[in-house]
Amino acid sequence: MEFKDDSLALHTDAYQINMTETYWHDHMHNRKAVFELYFRKLPFGNGYGMFAGLERIIEYVKGFRFSDSDIEYLRDSIGYEEDFLQYLKSLTFTGTIRSMREGELVFGNEPILQVESTLAEAQLLETALLNIVNYQTLIATKASRIKQVIGKEKALEFGSRRAQEMDAAIWGTRAAFIAGFDSTSNVRAGKKFGIPVSGTHAHSMIQVYKSDYLAMKKYAESCVRRKNKVFIPLVDTYDVLRSGVPAAIKVAKEFKGKVEFLGVRLDGGDMAYLSKETRKMLDQAGFQQTQIVASSDLDEQTILSLKAQGAQIDVWGIGTKLITAFDQPALGAVYKIVAIENEEGEMVDTIKISSNPEKVTTPGMKKVYRIINTLNQKSEGDYITLEDEEPQKEEQLKMFHPTHTFISKYVSNFEARELLTNVFVDGELVYKNPDIFAIQQFALENLNVLWEEYQRTLNPEEYPVDLSQKCWDNKMDIIHEIKAELKTK
Amino acid sequence: MEFKDDSLALHTDAYQINMTETYWHDHMHNRKAVFELYFRKLPFGNGYGMFAGLERIIEYVKGFRFSDSDIEYLRDSIGYEEDFLQYLKSLTFTGTIRSMREGELVFGNEPILQVESTLAEAQLLETALLNIVNYQTLIATKASRIKQVIGKEKALEFGSRRAQEMDAAIWGTRAAFIAGFDSTSNVRAGKKFGIPVSGTHAHSMIQVYKSDYLAMKKYAESCVRRKNKVFIPLVDTYDVLRSGVPAAIKVAKEFKGKVEFLGVRLDGGDMAYLSKETRKMLDQAGFQQTQIVASSDLDEQTILSLKAQGAQIDVWGIGTKLITAFDQPALGAVYKIVAIENEEGEMVDTIKISSNPEKVTTPGMKKVYRIINTLNQKSEGDYITLEDEEPQKEEQLKMFHPTHTFISKYVSNFEARELLTNVFVDGELVYKNPDIFAIQQFALENLNVLWEEYQRTLNPEEYPVDLSQKCWDNKMDIIHEIKAELKTK
Repeated sequence: MEFKDDSLALHTDAYQINMTETYWHDHMHNRKAVFELYFRKLPFGNGYGMFAGLERIIEYVKGFRFSDSDIEYLRDSIGYEEDFLQYLKSLTFTGTIRSMREGELVFGNEPILQVESTLAEAQLLETALLNIVNYQTLIATKASRIKQVIGKEKALEFGSRRAQEMDAAIWGTRAAFIAGFDSTSNVRAGKKFGIPVSGTHAHSMIQVYKSDYLAMKKYAESCVRRKNKVFIPLVDTYDVLRSGVPAAIKVAKEFKGKVEFLGVRLDGGDMAYLSKETRKMLDQAGFQQTQIVASSDLDEQTILSLKAQGAQIDVWGIGTKLITAFDQPALGAVYKIVAIENEEGEMVDTIKISSNPEKVTTPGMKKVYRIINTLNQKSEGDYITLEDEEPQKEEQLKMFHPTHTFISKYVSNFEARELLTNVFVDGELVYKNPDIFAIQQFALENLNVLWEEYQRTLNPEEYPVDLSQKCWDNKMDIIHEIKAELKTK
Repeated sequence: MEFKDDSLALHTDAYQINMTETYWHDHMHNRKAVFELYFRKLPFGNGYGMFAGLERIIEYVKGFRFSDSDIEYLRDSIGYEEDFLQYLKSLTFTGTIRSMREGELVFGNEPILQVESTLAEAQLLETALLNIVNYQTLIATKASRIKQVIGKEKALEFGSRRAQEMDAAIWGTRAAFIAGFDSTSNVRAGKKFGIPVSGTHAHSMIQVYKSDYLAMKKYAESCVRRKNKVFIPLVDTYDVLRSGVPAAIKVAKEFKGKVEFLGVRLDGGDMAYLSKETRKMLDQAGFQQTQIVASSDLDEQTILSLKAQGAQIDVWGIGTKLITAFDQPALGAVYKIVAIENEEGEMVDTIKISSNPEKVTTPGMKKVYRIINTLNQKSEGDYITLEDEEPQKEEQLKMFHPTHTFISKYVSNFEARELLTNVFVDGELVYKNPDIFAIQQFALENLNVLWEEYQRTLNPEEYPVDLSQKCWDNKMDIIHEIKAELKTK
């Protein structure tokens, strides 16, 4: 039997539907629950993460609805009872979602997204939310890290052919743009998100004309006819210094005034040597303004090394290593229940214990504040409270490490910026995501509150993410309660 | 300006469209060209690769057409000339695609897909074809590698939440199924591809009921009502041995005959120790048939280690490490032009030279044969010829290493199986992809022709991928020709 792929509601793990069925039969499905989404450890050894994924989440949650073919499939393949299927069919998201804004700096063990809804709805969204946030936040973080090394030079995203399938290509390049990249090679991403698109020509074009000069000349002719008259030939098909660059210079001279000889592109070989030699040849020919674009398996390490070698590279094309987050291709964000309504209609905090202390959850619905020192506008760290606390009202804040609790400091003169914002309230979308340029600007400005020590790519300082005393005490109380129960068994 | 995301034709790098424009203006766009898709190096140090991606490629190529909104976007954003836009609007794929079958074993430097079409069409498909093949082939290869270590035990794919966005989750799990996995947790993948779906419940369900016993009992009650009465509780929310397993056993006894107590699931902790202790407890309680399902960042290394420690695990749930190909998250397949029609309408072979010898392409449209020794039904290696050669007609075949040419052997008593099959011919789809179970069977049977030495996961022997004498001579002639031309400059 074939089913139409006409809905994303089944883009979930089977156990979510199994649990929902159990809850439904037990009349628990409409109990209110709070789930929080967070990762434990920053990726790449970076000092901060950068959140992305909200645009896609809004799209997903708005469209969340089991289609007829979804229901048919569930009936046919798993054989759920008809009443339960009809319940699923009637579902839309009616709860509240609070989230960080895209481009926000995020750290380990703090909620970056919070779902407060019926138990059933919260559970059915889990897999898709994690799938989206894990990838997009990973790539925004990787891209921001690469931008740290690139600095003010341009960064282009080139990775579509190596991305992990199509969604990754377009959502990944959007995440990179948020983190400060300048353009993408993926035209569909340009169309869908309004990201600037860039691209020149491939080696194959030189091969088709069997000559650097002839191919570049033909290419320049078509540049002349475009609104944007940019001419950036690829010079390494046969021999960079003996054929590619001389041909590019010759063509650029012939088309002087008709095209803008913005750059030449190198896509491999010894880029330190080749870029320096190419720079000399361009300068001697009078093209001091013409830039050198480099690509070929670049990442923050190779870029740092090329810069250290004095490579003459002005624009960096980054592909595989960025779009797959090559050195750590998964962010391990999790989605944990922190509170559930009891029979009396009260919310009760809940915990998951583990023999691995890092995996023990922090109970209760929480708020996350960034504590900005008003004297220097730098962040003192993030401060997680239970929902009814108001840190701004306190004269001074005690911030202590949630594991090594003796490490502590007192902060006064602070502004406590709340980081989670309402996106859906009782099922209604109340948040308008800014346009992609505004998100990028927000992301870049956010870095200003971070001391440089958190921003360096190698061995950054650990940014404090602390629990309020009340939040910490609540966690300890619940742990002891459960331990006591286990002991009596 | 906002555009509908209603087509995948722009899922390409901008330079493909720029080149197409150049060709179109120069009346080159309808020249016949041949491009071949291949990777250079096997991923993960594996001894073979497993091809996947054709299903998605067929879907993509069939639907390849620029939508009105695509054209509007190109007009608006890049400002191509109207005539050229109308040409794009009229395009569909009219050429020929030959491809390996899904589940075929593939190796470095052999064409796994070949496009013979107009230059424009071949170029416009490049990015999407690479994007699809690179990911799906990578995951099928990783999954096959993991299956080598798992052996006859069951393997479940659990990685959706860590996949690199949604497409990766579903196409990745399909690739894993091709390579021999038994089921997926992703319900949409089950619906779309007919893959069996499996799933139990999460830690959150235990937390909701605040008791292993109560949650498992409620869960068992809903299992009773399902067609499939499988009961596989998750036992590590609070304490595996003191709470989780005893509760599972208690509930299983209470529901004896009503549910099938197929297994318990462990999702972390010291899995060697916990699985052995759990096995003892299950056996003592009379549940010798109940299996132990393990998950938690598993891959071929950790599975090998757990097996070496005598872990009592019967079913392996594999997530992150598989679905992202964690240890090497990109396959570097490329798509290179090998022949182009000249002004006289003859096909001329073409090459890309590089200072890196591995990046020099092999000119000419080729065929790939697997040389099966008819005496033992094992493969002697793959043999790449120009299109007009017929190795089967030769009495004995000289096979020599394409780099270290002195390494050679003669093979007689062989069957030369051609590996590329027609998928599209002159724009028409002529291939019917088998159903997913048949593809899986084909994949598993393919492994039978490989000596074990190529199948081991650590330091496998290098499988021969050789060029015919004619193909090799052709490459050398063209290299010398180009070198001579460069010298005269």
